[in-house]
This record gives sequence, C-alpha cells and structure tokens, in this order.
Amino acid sequence: MEIKILQEKLAKALNNVSRVAGGARATLPILNNVLIRVDEGKVSLITTNLDMAVVSYLPASQSKNGVMTVPARLMAEFVGNLPRGEVVEIVSKDDKVTIKAGEYTSTINGASAEDFPELPEMDDAKAVKFQMEVEEFKAGLSQVMIAASNDTTRPALTGVYFNTFEGALYLAATDGYRLAERKFIEKVESEVTAIVPTGSLQEVLRSIGDDVNEIEILFDETQVRFRIGEIEVTSKLINGSFPDYRQLIPKETEIGVDLKRDELVRVTKLAALFAKEVGGSIVCKTSVENGCFSIASVANELGENNSEIKTEVTTDGKVTLNSRFLLDALNVLDGNAVRFGFSNKLDPVVLKAEGDDKYIHIVMPLKG
Amino acid sequence: MEIKILQEKLAKALNNVSRVAGGARATLPILNNVLIRVDEGKVSLITTNLDMAVVSYLPASQSKNGVMTVPARLMAEFVGNLPRGEVVEIVSKDDKVTIKAGEYTSTINGASAEDFPELPEMDDAKAVKFQMEVEEFKAGLSQVMIAASNDTTRPALTGVYFNTFEGALYLAATDGYRLAERKFIEKVESEVTAIVPTGSLQEVLRSIGDDVNEIEILFDETQVRFRIGEIEVTSKLINGSFPDYRQLIPKETEIGVDLKRDELVRVTKLAALFAKEVGGSIVCKTSVENGCFSIASVANELGENNSEIKTEVTTDGKVTLNSRFLLDALNVLDGNAVRFGFSNKLDPVVLKAEGDDKYIHIVMPLKG
Repeated sequence: MEIKILQEKLAKALNNVSRVAGGARATLPILNNVLIRVDEGKVSLITTNLDMAVVSYLPASQSKNGVMTVPARLMAEFVGNLPRGEVVEIVSKDDKVTIKAGEYTSTINGASAEDFPELPEMDDAKAVKFQMEVEEFKAGLSQVMIAASNDTTRPALTGVYFNTFEGALYLAATDGYRLAERKFIEKVESEVTAIVPTGSLQEVLRSIGDDVNEIEILFDETQVRFRIGEIEVTSKLINGSFPDYRQLIPKETEIGVDLKRDELVRVTKLAALFAKEVGGSIVCKTSVENGCFSIASVANELGENNSEIKTEVTTDGKVTLNSRFLLDALNVLDGNAVRFGFSNKLDPVVLKAEGDDKYIHIVMPLKG
Repeated sequence: MEIKILQEKLAKALNNVSRVAGGARATLPILNNVLIRVDEGKVSLITTNLDMAVVSYLPASQSKNGVMTVPARLMAEFVGNLPRGEVVEIVSKDDKVTIKAGEYTSTINGASAEDFPELPEMDDAKAVKFQMEVEEFKAGLSQVMIAASNDTTRPALTGVYFNTFEGALYLAATDGYRLAERKFIEKVESEVTAIVPTGSLQEVLRSIGDDVNEIEILFDETQVRFRIGEIEVTSKLINGSFPDYRQLIPKETEIGVDLKRDELVRVTKLAALFAKEVGGSIVCKTSVENGCFSIASVANELGENNSEIKTEVTTDGKVTLNSRFLLDALNVLDGNAVRFGFSNKLDPVVLKAEGDDKYIHIVMPLKG
C-alpha cells in the first residue's frame, strides 16, 4: 500500500474517524485501529465500535492499492502535528506503516486488515431515503436530543425516534420526565419508524463540516446511514418500541403566559441556585392580581428565593417543576419569546417559541 | 447591616473572593462563607481557607455598619445572575440576609461573624516591600511556577522561592527534575528569602484584573501579602529550606544549538506521541555531519519516530529527556528562537529564549 496526500486533507479525515476508535467498549484491540484502504486512487479510512462505523473518503495524488490497519489516535495525532502544506507519504510493509513528510519519519506498528470486523452492508437501492439541509438538521436534532434518556435499562428511550406521521417526518425523544418533538420535512414520500442511538447522532453532529450543505439519511430494517459530504456514519438501530408519545402532548393548556426567554432563564437560574438541596424543585405561579408570572424556590437550609416577571395573566395557577428540565428546554428554544403553558398541578407544561410551530417541548410537573 | 451597591461591582468582588471559600480543605462549615463587613461606607468581603485569605474592598452608595457571613458561592452565583445595572440592596436581620434587586428577592441563611476565623495580622510598617508591574509579574511568575513540585512530602519544593541575590529579586522553583528561575527587579533595597505556596500564587494570578497596573508584595516572617488594586491576598509562607539551587545551574554548556521554538515544539510533540509507553523518554541528538538537531523516540510497541531540524552544529552529542518537561519549558519561553544547550548524558539541559537573559530553565536528563 502506498499513498501520497496533502497533510491537511489527511489530518482532517483521520480526525473525523479517529473519535470512534478505541472507545470504552473497545474490547477487541483492533477496534483501536483505523483501517486504511487504497483502491484505484481512492482512499477510505474506516473505524468502528461494532455499534457504529465511520468511513471517510479522500483522493490521493499518488497511490498503490492495498489495505492496512494502524492505531487510529496515534496516526491522527501524528499527522495532525505535521506542518500544513507538506505532502505525506505512507508506505506499508509487513505489519508496519512508514510515514514521511519532509524531515519527519515515523514507523507505526499496525495490524493486518484481516482481523478488522466486517462492516455492515446496506443496499442503497432498497433503503428508505431522506434528504435535509444540514443546518436545519443540526439545529433541530440538538433541540430533540436533550430530552433523550441516559438510562440504559430502557434502551428505546436512549435514542431519537425518527417517525413519519400524516406525511411529515418527525424526530422525538423522551426520558419519561420531558419530551421534545420537531417536525422536519413537510412532505415525505416514504415512511419510517426507527430509533437511532443518541451516541451515533452525536457522532453525526461532530462529523458535519463547514463545507457540507446537505445530509442524506438512509434506513433499512436494522440500520441507518448518514451521508455527510465525504463522510458516512452507519449505525445499528435500537431494537424496541418507542412510546406512543403523541397522546402525551396536550392539545391546549388552560393557562398560558408569554415571556421573554432571557428573563425566564434568569429567574429560573436564580431559583435553581436555592433549589439544589430540594432536587431542583421550583414553583411557577401566575397571579392575575399582581399581573405577573413568578418563580419561587422551596424554603430550605440555604434560604429562599422569589422572582417576578410582569406579564399579561388571565388565570391564576401554580405548577412545580424541576428547574434543570426547564433550563434545558429554554436553552434550545429559538428566538426570544416563549409561551409557557400549563393546566393544573399534574398536566404537562408546554413550552414553545413564539412563531415556531415545528418544535414543542413538554415537561412533566413534580408533585408540589 | 445594610448595603446598596451596583450589581456589576458586587458581582465582581464576590467572584474574586468566592473561589477561596469551601475548597477541599473546608472542614469548618463557616469556611464556605464570605464575611461581609460594612464600616462607614466601606464594604469588605473576606474569605479564607486558613492557609490563605482574600479580601476585596468596595464602596457602597448607601450603607449601615454591620458584619455577617453567608455561603460565598451561593451569594456570588445569585448576585452574578442578577441583571447588570440594577442596584442590589442587602439587609441582614438575625442570621438571615435579604437581597433585593428590582423584582428579585432572596433570603439567604447566614451565620454569625463571631465564628469566622481571625484573619492574620500584618504590620505594614515592618514588612519588607516590593513593587512590580503587574504584566511582568504575571508573565514571569507563570514561567517559574510550572517547575514547582506537586509532591507534598517535600513541602519546600511545592512553592515558589522568592529570594534576593546580589541586589536583585529572583523567583525560582524546582521539582528535582527541572528548575526555572527568573530575575525580576534589578535593584532592590530590602532582602528576602521566602517560599510562597503555589496555590496562593495561582489565586494571586486569578485575582489580577484588567484594570490593575501594579502589584505590591509584602513579607513578614511567616506571611506574604499581595496587594492588587482593591484585592488583597494574604498567605502563610512554607516553612522549610529551599535547595541551594544556583549551584545546579551550569555556567555554560559544551554543546549548543539555536532552534526555532515552533519547530522544536513540533518535533518534540511528534516524538512524545511515540514515547507514551516509555514514560515520555525521547533522545535529542546533534550531528555535525548532517548539520542537524534531531529528536527520536525509543522504539517500542507503538513504533518509532525520528525528526530532524537543520541547524548549525559544531559538536556531536546526545541526551535523553522527558518530553513533557521539554514541552512545558518550550511553552513558557518567550519569543520564537531557543538556545538548547547540553554537555553530556548526565549534565542538565539548559533552555533559554534568544535575547532573554532573565529567564533560565534547566531539565535533568534521563539515563539514556
């Protein structure tokens, strides 16, 4: 195997794939390695953690066919530290890879590609395909992902649920305490219901470079593949059924106030400081008499806190929330005007950004 | 006690002192608190961890004398989250402090100032005083501090040694493997030898605001005090004797090469990647025949590495170093030209920046 390639191109591609190599689950030593394949001038760099594989494609100015694996992080750090503008020359012989660039020479001990796990195949022609603008996908996915669970005993809740409904594509996530849903494509021609692991989606987000405008998403029965420019992230789907979440979203709420997002963030943060010892519990109230929305912490060892925001109020009400969930939601809402809707102590709180009908975030109240 | 004061001023002062409160050594609960003292319009905020105390002075627009303690971090975070431009009103009653600002009200449970540890006194008139430009002090101190030890079994090496010698003030630190020394004031009128804990110096560095030009340093027998604008950091000195380090610094070296700092950093980093499994051990060589300085890693499981820098060489030589110590030193050297001097396998390596006679860094070789 032989490759000649510009340092910055190789460094970028290695950087993209090396994150997946050698994670906590890398029980096989070869999972620390990147597989380098050269085939008629085309170079592929491949890493996998068995649940997910990342492939980065790049052209070489000169090459000889071959295939080899080397420790991914060492290779990425080494090439990353070489000077920009240099041509990097990679030659493999036996199980060693020699890398040269200017006055720099290294020999890295690799391993035969034979032991590298087979990559999952996906039949492009049979897959269900969606295409999206990268920026919209990135922003929307981040809004949804925060509601996913970390609790691996309920695997279905640890992923993001891609689902088509009444002709549109939706992404949703819930950890049982809160739920986020975003509508993506208004009119889709194919149907899908699939739970994608959050870890794989984080990798997809990290793989999105500045120079990419579109993302292609392909599903088959057991896998999803994201095509982002020269990078492909392929992941297993989570096997399980996602809760029928649409019935949990209230059609409307009895009480609603319009608030400035930054003011609401501030009063929530102030109350949260005092709520540390009571599990983050804060009490949100609307008062017709005072014409205000207020947040108070429950009195405890630290002290107590009450902050008001003047706003139009038509109905008195009270709901107890976890301040962290409220802050998480406020952090991902677009724009600077928020509708805070609730009904009574036990019905979910509904958060929406003004003028954004695509995204909805609901938070379950605590028993006050 | 009563204070009215602008949010941004109070937030800044609280932020300055709250870091010292409630550290790992805060065995007394009251050490989590900030003491707030109001005396004729002057407000002092004081925190201590028993080894070190920080005082921040600020004027109040309105006030009533009194003294009180409250949890420092809660208070700092609360005030920090209030809107800029608001006047914050603080009133204490019994053991509670009420804070108001606009629509925001909080009551923080405090504790009587009686239990707050007595602060060390220092007699200004008898103290040995030095004055320095803040920027020079900051830059120079950072260059020295990195050589101090973390090993608490040898307390004297965990500090920075302030010492006067032949009429000048020097700061030095060593962990036994490397040593850094910087000359500060060319002509001093007083004499001092004192070991200042690195932790206190880090606090001093963090306390230096953008608006301060001068730092005043006062020593008595057991303490040091740093005056930085409206902030005073007072620390116990380390009781112990610092090694007679001047005899360890070679007067001259047999071999010396001039190198570009960024090139030397690069080749050291490349070699360090391969040296992880051999404790960071790298071999530096000069070769008259090849007209180059080179760094190689010792061959091991990962592979091996060799990088060259073309430069004028008059003598062949070889020395083995810990790559981390070399990188640490290169990170703090000024400018972009470095003199790398060494004699033989066992004599210390001397690193200096071109044109900087004030700073010297030496690294002990490893047995190659």
